[in-house]
Amino acid sequence: MFPLHPDRLLPTHEPERTLARDLYESVKDLPIISPHGHTDPAWFADNNRFSDPTSLFITPDHYVLRMFGSQGISYDDLGVPRKDGKAVETDPRKAWRIFASHYHLFDGTPSKIWVDHAMQHVLGVDKELNAQNADVIYDHIMQKLGTPALLPRAILENAKVELIATTEFALDPLVHHQKMVKDGYISRVITTYRPDDVVNPDFAGGSPQNILKFGEITGEDVTTWAGLMNAHRKRREYFRAHGATATDHDAANAMTADLTPPEKQKLLDTVLKGNFTPQEAELFRAQMLTELALMSVEDGMTMQLHIGSKRNTDVGMYQTRGPNMGADIPKTMDCVHGLSALLNKCGREKDFRLLVFVLDETLYARELAPMAGYWPCMMIGPPWWFHDSPQGMRRYLDQCVETAGFYNLAGFNDDTRALLSIPARHDVWRREACRFLAERVAEHRISKTAASEIAHYLCYRATKDAYKLGN
Amino acid sequence: MFPLHPDRLLPTHEPERTLARDLYESVKDLPIISPHGHTDPAWFADNNRFSDPTSLFITPDHYVLRMFGSQGISYDDLGVPRKDGKAVETDPRKAWRIFASHYHLFDGTPSKIWVDHAMQHVLGVDKELNAQNADVIYDHIMQKLGTPALLPRAILENAKVELIATTEFALDPLVHHQKMVKDGYISRVITTYRPDDVVNPDFAGGSPQNILKFGEITGEDVTTWAGLMNAHRKRREYFRAHGATATDHDAANAMTADLTPPEKQKLLDTVLKGNFTPQEAELFRAQMLTELALMSVEDGMTMQLHIGSKRNTDVGMYQTRGPNMGADIPKTMDCVHGLSALLNKCGREKDFRLLVFVLDETLYARELAPMAGYWPCMMIGPPWWFHDSPQGMRRYLDQCVETAGFYNLAGFNDDTRALLSIPARHDVWRREACRFLAERVAEHRISKTAASEIAHYLCYRATKDAYKLGN
Amino acid sequence: MFPLHPDRLLPTHEPERTLARDLYESVKDLPIISPHGHTDPAWFADNNRFSDPTSLFITPDHYVLRMFGSQGISYDDLGVPRKDGKAVETDPRKAWRIFASHYHLFDGTPSKIWVDHAMQHVLGVDKELNAQNADVIYDHIMQKLGTPALLPRAILENAKVELIATTEFALDPLVHHQKMVKDGYISRVITTYRPDDVVNPDFAGGSPQNILKFGEITGEDVTTWAGLMNAHRKRREYFRAHGATATDHDAANAMTADLTPPEKQKLLDTVLKGNFTPQEAELFRAQMLTELALMSVEDGMTMQLHIGSKRNTDVGMYQTRGPNMGADIPKTMDCVHGLSALLNKCGREKDFRLLVFVLDETLYARELAPMAGYWPCMMIGPPWWFHDSPQGMRRYLDQCVETAGFYNLAGFNDDTRALLSIPARHDVWRREACRFLAERVAEHRISKTAASEIAHYLCYRATKDAYKLGN
Repeated sequence: MFPLHPDRLLPTHEPERTLARDLYESVKDLPIISPHGHTDPAWFADNNRFSDPTSLFITPDHYVLRMFGSQGISYDDLGVPRKDGKAVETDPRKAWRIFASHYHLFDGTPSKIWVDHAMQHVLGVDKELNAQNADVIYDHIMQKLGTPALLPRAILENAKVELIATTEFALDPLVHHQKMVKDGYISRVITTYRPDDVVNPDFAGGSPQNILKFGEITGEDVTTWAGLMNAHRKRREYFRAHGATATDHDAANAMTADLTPPEKQKLLDTVLKGNFTPQEAELFRAQMLTELALMSVEDGMTMQLHIGSKRNTDVGMYQTRGPNMGADIPKTMDCVHGLSALLNKCGREKDFRLLVFVLDETLYARELAPMAGYWPCMMIGPPWWFHDSPQGMRRYLDQCVETAGFYNLAGFNDDTRALLSIPARHDVWRREACRFLAERVAEHRISKTAASEIAHYLCYRATKDAYKLGN
Repeated sequence: MFPLHPDRLLPTHEPERTLARDLYESVKDLPIISPHGHTDPAWFADNNRFSDPTSLFITPDHYVLRMFGSQGISYDDLGVPRKDGKAVETDPRKAWRIFASHYHLFDGTPSKIWVDHAMQHVLGVDKELNAQNADVIYDHIMQKLGTPALLPRAILENAKVELIATTEFALDPLVHHQKMVKDGYISRVITTYRPDDVVNPDFAGGSPQNILKFGEITGEDVTTWAGLMNAHRKRREYFRAHGATATDHDAANAMTADLTPPEKQKLLDTVLKGNFTPQEAELFRAQMLTELALMSVEDGMTMQLHIGSKRNTDVGMYQTRGPNMGADIPKTMDCVHGLSALLNKCGREKDFRLLVFVLDETLYARELAPMAGYWPCMMIGPPWWFHDSPQGMRRYLDQCVETAGFYNLAGFNDDTRALLSIPARHDVWRREACRFLAERVAEHRISKTAASEIAHYLCYRATKDAYKLGN
Repeated sequence: MFPLHPDRLLPTHEPERTLARDLYESVKDLPIISPHGHTDPAWFADNNRFSDPTSLFITPDHYVLRMFGSQGISYDDLGVPRKDGKAVETDPRKAWRIFASHYHLFDGTPSKIWVDHAMQHVLGVDKELNAQNADVIYDHIMQKLGTPALLPRAILENAKVELIATTEFALDPLVHHQKMVKDGYISRVITTYRPDDVVNPDFAGGSPQNILKFGEITGEDVTTWAGLMNAHRKRREYFRAHGATATDHDAANAMTADLTPPEKQKLLDTVLKGNFTPQEAELFRAQMLTELALMSVEDGMTMQLHIGSKRNTDVGMYQTRGPNMGADIPKTMDCVHGLSALLNKCGREKDFRLLVFVLDETLYARELAPMAGYWPCMMIGPPWWFHDSPQGMRRYLDQCVETAGFYNLAGFNDDTRALLSIPARHDVWRREACRFLAERVAEHRISKTAASEIAHYLCYRATKDAYKLGN
C-alpha cells in the first residue's frame, strides 16, 4: 500500500477514471476550510510540539479506541486515562506497539485511510505500520515531532488549511481564542458557539448550576425567559468576537417546540428548580432549539444541528472514564415531525441557514433531501462520524443529490479531534466527490463543464456559503 | 449535453453496455401505458393548445417550484398563483428567465432529465437552456405550441401513449371523461376512482359535508354503513363506465382495520357528526381501506395504495397557496402491521390485485418485497415521486427483485402532472430496467433470453397485468 | 445458463475480475463449516435415501412455496400437507411439473442460484429446468437419489462439510444426536441449544406446560427462578454433550431486561399461572435473554440472537398448515435500546460471544456495525434469510465493514432447511466476499496480501472463532 496510490478511491475503469482524475486534479490543492471540528484550540494558541505518536494517533481518537476495545484490548493497556486523569499504562511506546501489531484490524475502515495518509504525507513514513517496524516508526515520528514543520500552526499551513473552527461550550471563557485574537491568528482559527451546557438540563455539571453561571458571566437575569435569551444574545456576540460564524447543537432526537411565553417561563422555572422529568428536559431542549434558530435569524449565525447520537451507551465505561470513549451509537428519528415547529417558525426567513447532520442514513432520501430541497434555510451537512468514509459518502451522494440537487449540500467538514486526519479526510471527500461526478459524466447525466463547477462547489465554495465565510 | 447521448444512463463498460443497448433497442419503442397519473383530463377532452412554456414546465410542477424555493426564489416571482387564483407576477416570460438562469440547480436531478428530454424530443430544441438563450428558446416553444403536433392528443399520439389514466375524486362529475366517452377518446384516456374526498374525514371540504354530498349524487342513504357501501359501489360503476379499471388511495400511514358492523356504524355516526378525534378519523380511513379492498374483490378493480407522504408540512405555504406546492415530505411506516387487517381479510382472494407504493425506501427489502413475494394479491408499485429517478430505480430493483422476483413488480407508471415528462419518465425506466438486466446477464445470473422477456414484461406487459388492461 | 459460468457473480471488468478470481480460487475448496441451520438430524443419524425431488426441493422450502403462492398457485397443488399431516396432492411428480413450468418466477432470486447449483454440482443435471424437460430431470434425479453418493452423509462428505450444526428446542430429547454420539458422527453433526420453547411464554405448546415439562426432564424445581436457571444449566450441559457450542434465540424485537430477584420471581409466578399479558410475556423473554447471556459467560457457549421476524402474518395459513409457510415478514427494531440491559450486564465479560442477526438492513450501518465495533462480546451475524443473496451480501459488506472492520464479522452460515442448498449458499458468500475484496484492492484501499488473509477469515476462520470450534 505504500507509497499510497495516486488513484486510490477513484474509479478503476475508463472513461470514469480519466474523468475523475481530471476533476480531482482541479480540486486536490484547493485550500481546506474546516468549519466544524473538535481540535484543541490550545494547540494553535500555544503552538507547542506534540509529545509522542500515541497521544497523537491513539489516546484521543475514539475510532481507534473502540476498535481495539471491540477486540478485547483494554483501554488501560492503551494508556487511556481514567476519570481521575491517571492512566494505568504510562509508557506511550507500549500502546504504540499494540496499535502497530493490531493495525490489520483497521483494514477496510476509514481510520486506516486517515492514518496511512498522515504517515505518508505529514510524517514522511514510507512503510505500512506493523509489529516489526513499530519501534522504528515510533522513533521516526518522535524525531519529526521535534521539527518546526510539525508544530500545530505549521501543520495547518502545510495542509493549506485556510480556516479551521473549534467548538466551545457557552460557559467556556475562550482563553485560547483570546490569545489568538491578540496575535491575529484568529483569522485562521475561529470558535463555534455550542451552548449544550446551558441548553440541555441533563448536561454534565447539571441544571440549574450551569444556567445560573451563564447568568453570572453575561450579567443577565436568567431566571426570566427574556433574560435567558439576552444572555444567549450577549454570549453569541462574545463568540462572534472570537471568530464564530456558526452555532452547533447536539440533539439526541430532532424535537423542536413552539411554546407560548407563559409556558416557556413555567418550563424555565421547573428547570431552574433542578427537579424536572425527562419529558420536561426534552421540552426545554426542544424550545431552546427554536429560540436559537430565531436568534440566528437575528444575528445571521449559521445554525448546525447534529442529531441522532445516543450517548454513553456503556454505563460502566462512562462512570470509569467519562464521555467520548466510543460508546455513542446512532439512533433513528423523525426529522419531519421533529423540526416542524422550528421550520414553521422561521424556515422561510431570509438568510437563515440551518445545517442538519444525521447518523441514520435512511433519513437522507426519505427526509433530509426532500426537506433541504424545499426549505430555503436548510442544507444537508456532509456524511458524519461513522459515515465520514468512502462508502458513507457514496451512499450520501447517491441518496441526497437527486432530490436536493448539489446546491443544497453544505460541502464537507471533518468534525475531528485528530489534527493529522484533517487533510486526509478532506482528500477522501474530494476523491469521492470527483468519483461521483465522473460517473455521472460518463453516463451522460451531467456535462463535463457542470461537473467541474460542482466539484469546486462541493470541495470549497459550498462551505464558505453555508458558514457565511465571505469570498 | 445536447444532443442527448443515445447511451445515457446505460452501463459505461462492456459487456454490459452492448447487452443493455440490445435490450433497450427491443423496448424503447414499445407503446407507453400510463396507468396512474395526474394530468388534466380537460387537455385531452378539449384538445386546446398550451398557452406558454411557463405554464407547461414551471407553474404546475412542484419538483421545479420546490427546488427554486429551496434556493430562496419566491413562488410569487415564478408566477405561482395565491389561493385567490391570482399571481403576483403575471408575465410568464419573466418566470421562464428565472428558470433558465438557474437551470444549473437541476444538475443531477431527474427534473433535468425530463425537461431536457421534452426539449429535444417533443419541442425540437437543440441547446441546453441557459440565461443567454432563455428568450430564444421561449419564442421557439411558443411557436411550436401553435402547431398541431403540440396539441394534447397529438402529444399522446407522438409519444405512442396507448393508454393514460387520470385520477378523479369520488365527487368529481367526470365531465371531461363524459365528453371523451362521446367522441370515443375514452379508449385512450380513462379515469381512476380516488375516493379520498369521502373516505378521509380530514379531507379539504370536510366531513360530514362530502359524505352527505356523496349520498346525494348516488341516491344512497350514507348515514348507514350499508348505504355508504352502496354509494361506493354505484360510484365505482360510474367510474368504470368512464374507463376506470383501478382505484387509488392516499394514506399517510398503512393502517387498515377490521371492525364489527356495530363498531363501523358507530364510527360512521361519529364522523357524520363532524366532531371526531384524530384517532377516529384514522380508524375511519383504516376501516374504509379494508372495505374498498373487499369491493375490489367484488368488482375486480385494481386497488392502488400510495402511502407515506406527510402532506403540507409548511403550514404558511398551505394557507397561502394550498396543497401540492412541494411541502409534502415522506415518512416511514409499518406496512406489515398496518396492512395486516386488510390482507388477512382478503389477501388470498382470487383476482384481487393490490398495488402498494411507498416513499420510504427502507420498506423495499424489509417489508414490500417479502410481502409481495408471499401474498397472491400484492404487487410492488414502481419507485414513486422523489424516487422516480435513475438512482431511485437502481435502489428499488436492487432491493426488491431478489425477494419478490420480477413478476411481483407492477411495471412502471409516471404519476405525473407534467404531460411532457411522460415519455421522458418511461424512457428512464426502460433504460434503468435494461441496465439492471444487462448487469445480471454479465454476471451470469440470468440468461439473455430471460432478460429479454423480463425487459418486455417490466416495460409493457406488467402494467397491463397489474391494471387488468387486457391483451 | 448451463453449464454454470465459472465467473458468475464475480466482477465483469479488469482488474477486479482477475483479482477476484485469484481470491476465489484460494477459498473455493475450503471445508464448509455450517454452524447454524435447520437441517433434519434424522437425515444424518439414519443416513437413509431421499424419496424424491419434490420433497427435496419444494415441499420443505418456504422460499419456493411463498413465490408460488404469491403467483396464485395453491400450496395444496404443490403437495404441502395440511395441519393433519395429509396433503391434497400426493403425487410428487405433479408438484415438480408446476415447479418446472414456473421456474422463470425465480429469475433474479437466490433460490434459482441455489437450485441451479444443486442441479449441476450435486445431481449432475446439465440443463436448466423447464416445462419440457421436467419429467426427464425428475427421472434423472430419482435415479441419482438411489445411488450411495446421494445419501445424506455422502452429500456432506462430497460438499466438504467439516461440521454442521442443527438446531433443537430445549425439550427435544436429541435422539438423533444420541445415535450420532454412539457412532461417532457427532464430530460432524452437532446440535444447538434453542430454548424458545421454555423461554417464550407464547410458544406453541404454551406456558406453563412447557416450563413444567422442562422441570421434569431436568429434575429441577422450575417454580423458583434459581431452579429455572439450574434447569437451563443442566440442559445446556446435556446439549454440549451432544456437540453444542452455541445457543440460539428468536426474538421478535431486541428487548432485554435486568430485573431484581423479587421482580424475576414475581414474573415467573405470573407466567406459570398461564394468565399473563403480552407485556408480561415480552418482559419474561427480555429477562431470559439477559439470564442466558450470563449463562454463556459461565459456560462459554456462543449466544446467537436472531431478531426481527414477525411470525405467521397470515393467520389463515397458520391455522391451516402451521408455521414456516413463508408468511414471516421482517420488522424494524431498536437494538441500541433493546440490547442495553444485556450489554451493560455482561457485554464486557471476557470470552463472552454474542452474534446478532437481523432482517432490517437499516440496522447494519446505524446500529450493528457501531455496536460490534465497540462491544468486546459482539459480532455481526451474516446476512440472514431474505438477505442471504448476492445483493443482500453486497449491502451487508458495504454497510458493515467500514465501521466494524472485518474482524467483528462472524463469517457465514446458511441457516437452511434445504440440504442441497448448503454448498450453493457458501459458494455465493465466497464469491461475494472475494468480489468485495477485489474491488477494494482495485481501488487501492487494501493490499492483495490483506485481501487474501481476509478472504480466508471470512470464508472459514471467522466461523471457527465465532462459534469457538477450535483450530
